[in-house]
Amino acid sequence: MSTDAWDGLLLGATLATLDGDSGYGLIEDGALGWRDGRIVHVGPHDALPDGAEAQAGQVIETRGLVTPGLIDCHTHAVFAGNRAGEFEMRLQGASYEEIARAGGGIVSSVRAVREADEDALLAQSLPRAQALVADGATTLEIKSGYGLDFDNERKMLRVARRIGDVLGITVRTTFLGAHALPPEFAGRGDAYIDAVCDWLPRLHADGLVDAVDAFAERIAFSAAQTRRVFEVARTLGLPVKLHADQLSDGEGAALVAEFGGLSADHVEHTSPAGVAAMARAGTVAVLLPGAFHVLRETTLPPLDAFRAAGVPMAVATDCNPGTSPLLSLRQAMQLACTHFRLTPEEALRGATVHAARALGLADRGRLAVGQRADFACWQVAQPAELVYWLGGPLLAMSFAGGHRLD
Amino acid sequence: MSTDAWDGLLLGATLATLDGDSGYGLIEDGALGWRDGRIVHVGPHDALPDGAEAQAGQVIETRGLVTPGLIDCHTHAVFAGNRAGEFEMRLQGASYEEIARAGGGIVSSVRAVREADEDALLAQSLPRAQALVADGATTLEIKSGYGLDFDNERKMLRVARRIGDVLGITVRTTFLGAHALPPEFAGRGDAYIDAVCDWLPRLHADGLVDAVDAFAERIAFSAAQTRRVFEVARTLGLPVKLHADQLSDGEGAALVAEFGGLSADHVEHTSPAGVAAMARAGTVAVLLPGAFHVLRETTLPPLDAFRAAGVPMAVATDCNPGTSPLLSLRQAMQLACTHFRLTPEEALRGATVHAARALGLADRGRLAVGQRADFACWQVAQPAELVYWLGGPLLAMSFAGGHRLD
Ligand SMILES: [Zn+2]
Ligand SMILES: [Zn+2]
Repeated sequence: MSTDAWDGLLLGATLATLDGDSGYGLIEDGALGWRDGRIVHVGPHDALPDGAEAQAGQVIETRGLVTPGLIDCHTHAVFAGNRAGEFEMRLQGASYEEIARAGGGIVSSVRAVREADEDALLAQSLPRAQALVADGATTLEIKSGYGLDFDNERKMLRVARRIGDVLGITVRTTFLGAHALPPEFAGRGDAYIDAVCDWLPRLHADGLVDAVDAFAERIAFSAAQTRRVFEVARTLGLPVKLHADQLSDGEGAALVAEFGGLSADHVEHTSPAGVAAMARAGTVAVLLPGAFHVLRETTLPPLDAFRAAGVPMAVATDCNPGTSPLLSLRQAMQLACTHFRLTPEEALRGATVHAARALGLADRGRLAVGQRADFACWQVAQPAELVYWLGGPLLAMSFAGGHRLD
Repeated sequence: MSTDAWDGLLLGATLATLDGDSGYGLIEDGALGWRDGRIVHVGPHDALPDGAEAQAGQVIETRGLVTPGLIDCHTHAVFAGNRAGEFEMRLQGASYEEIARAGGGIVSSVRAVREADEDALLAQSLPRAQALVADGATTLEIKSGYGLDFDNERKMLRVARRIGDVLGITVRTTFLGAHALPPEFAGRGDAYIDAVCDWLPRLHADGLVDAVDAFAERIAFSAAQTRRVFEVARTLGLPVKLHADQLSDGEGAALVAEFGGLSADHVEHTSPAGVAAMARAGTVAVLLPGAFHVLRETTLPPLDAFRAAGVPMAVATDCNPGTSPLLSLRQAMQLACTHFRLTPEEALRGATVHAARALGLADRGRLAVGQRADFACWQVAQPAELVYWLGGPLLAMSFAGGHRLD
């Protein structure tokens, strides 16, 4: 292809391509060309084809570091209200019972989502997605799960889709009807799962569901209930993932692996058998250090077992109002390094290559020919700085599908 | 004073005045007026004097929450290079010896500062100060301590002053010659303290020193050496503060209290006697949760003892390249809540009222008539959100001395 067909060419930065199985894949003084939203050239500046600089549609001169656009593969970023009041009560010494009596907990988020109309829910959720994008994300996964009835779950998923359209990024939607038991089903968990299994095909028919998730935990849904939801997903050809083994080993990792799931998420208490099942199934371990940090957990996920078994580890914000009010994936990466002792390279792969895999997306996560032109330009000299600095506006600019994001 | 003399009037937000000994001092739908850089009016909108809106020089309509400008009372934000490479080596499993052999540790920061000329040091340090300001700081303390010879300590302090001028904020400079022993004084700690005691009056004569600090720890300087530096400070009428009891109880808190010091900083291992001495002297405890987080410390400062004794607790970033690469005071407040279980109110007072006291500044830290017109406008509804959210651009705008910051 002649270079005059390139839409854009980026010069002057070090490229962290993450191409290859290990290392950052650094190219100093690199050149990155794209066309029609895809990368068509990656290499050192001095190996550019003749005429490329003169002929590309636009030439962007920058400095610093360019990475693949970050991919946040686990968020609950669509919600209404927030739970800062509950956060404050907890620090003032209130018990969970007192917080619940004061109207706190997940039911307060369900109430707020149900009360908000679709535009209001979008208006409240959009700034959070913008904050994630402002710190380098170009792909977001967003779950339902605070509606807990057909109309409100649909509303959440529609808002997630609209966020992608408004921001010009990819949003992957996940149906998480089996997140919590809504008040009107109290004591009737199986009946609620019946309802969830009824809603899923209808939401999928509306084009609103890219994947299916559940919260398998003693305080939420049993393995048998989760299995019923996953069976409907399988019938529809939808991939599954699971909130697994966060508070105890509920054999969630093995369950989602049995269904060939994309990911098992949290996984603090996953057993060796669960790790082995994930390795066999190619299921990604999604680490969520934000909730670990906020809840002051002490049980680490079985990181060495994941490494030994070759289970890819992703890192995500889990952006949610109750346990992980994180507005930056880079901050989640920092927490993964501090709390879980991930190396900076593991953290960066966890928010790019492995996060893409956790979403079933093969077209992004690396800077390589044929991949989507999703990339982030940072005002840093080396990749480790992305997790070394806590806070700070480090992003210079970012592109999704070859288009510059605001 | 007639309202037509007001330079500015801010309307539409909830004011968290922090005026009074407890509570946020909230005023809903508040009005804040200022003139000549000072606050001249604070109250509810409906109690504004007649004509104020029509007559003030500028009327700013905003929403959300207004707090006093944040005050970062402990930073090492002037430095050259960074130590992300060392951070990465540590996560890859390198020992401190291996890092030292690879040229890491504080000596690498000393080398980088000495190699940078004043303009280069400013160019590298300014973005960090801008990041702190972008998350709500309007006053910064900045220490020397990576020069460790007369010319380079002076260079650092000059850069700190220039940062204040460039950004239009208050920068309080602290001479920290007794930070570490430079290589050329290896094995000659007392001789180095002689030199520090010689430099201090000369730097003060140049108008570069607002306060004097030292690092009293087994791995740094003894109590006797610290005392010698403090005695020179006393002769010059300069207030003192101390890096005290971070890694072990070195009776640093009692020492700085004996000199009527502004603050004892870190204080993880301060003894009951140290707490009592601080209470008697009115010395502030400056909590630095960033280093606690990065170093994964487990010994908490004696928070309940500080509370019981009425020792004010401030919170600061400790922004430095080795142990606390924090670019946001709000993030330090979040870490103080998570790791130290401060309440959001304690964290906010710690970054305003008590931080002002830790700098010996009585003219800021609250929204009250006569205080400097330093304030921050946040896109949040309630104060607890400032520490609830991790990351995210929450600041809408800020003012220092009545002037809007970029
Ligand atoms: Zn989640
Ligand atoms: Zn310090």
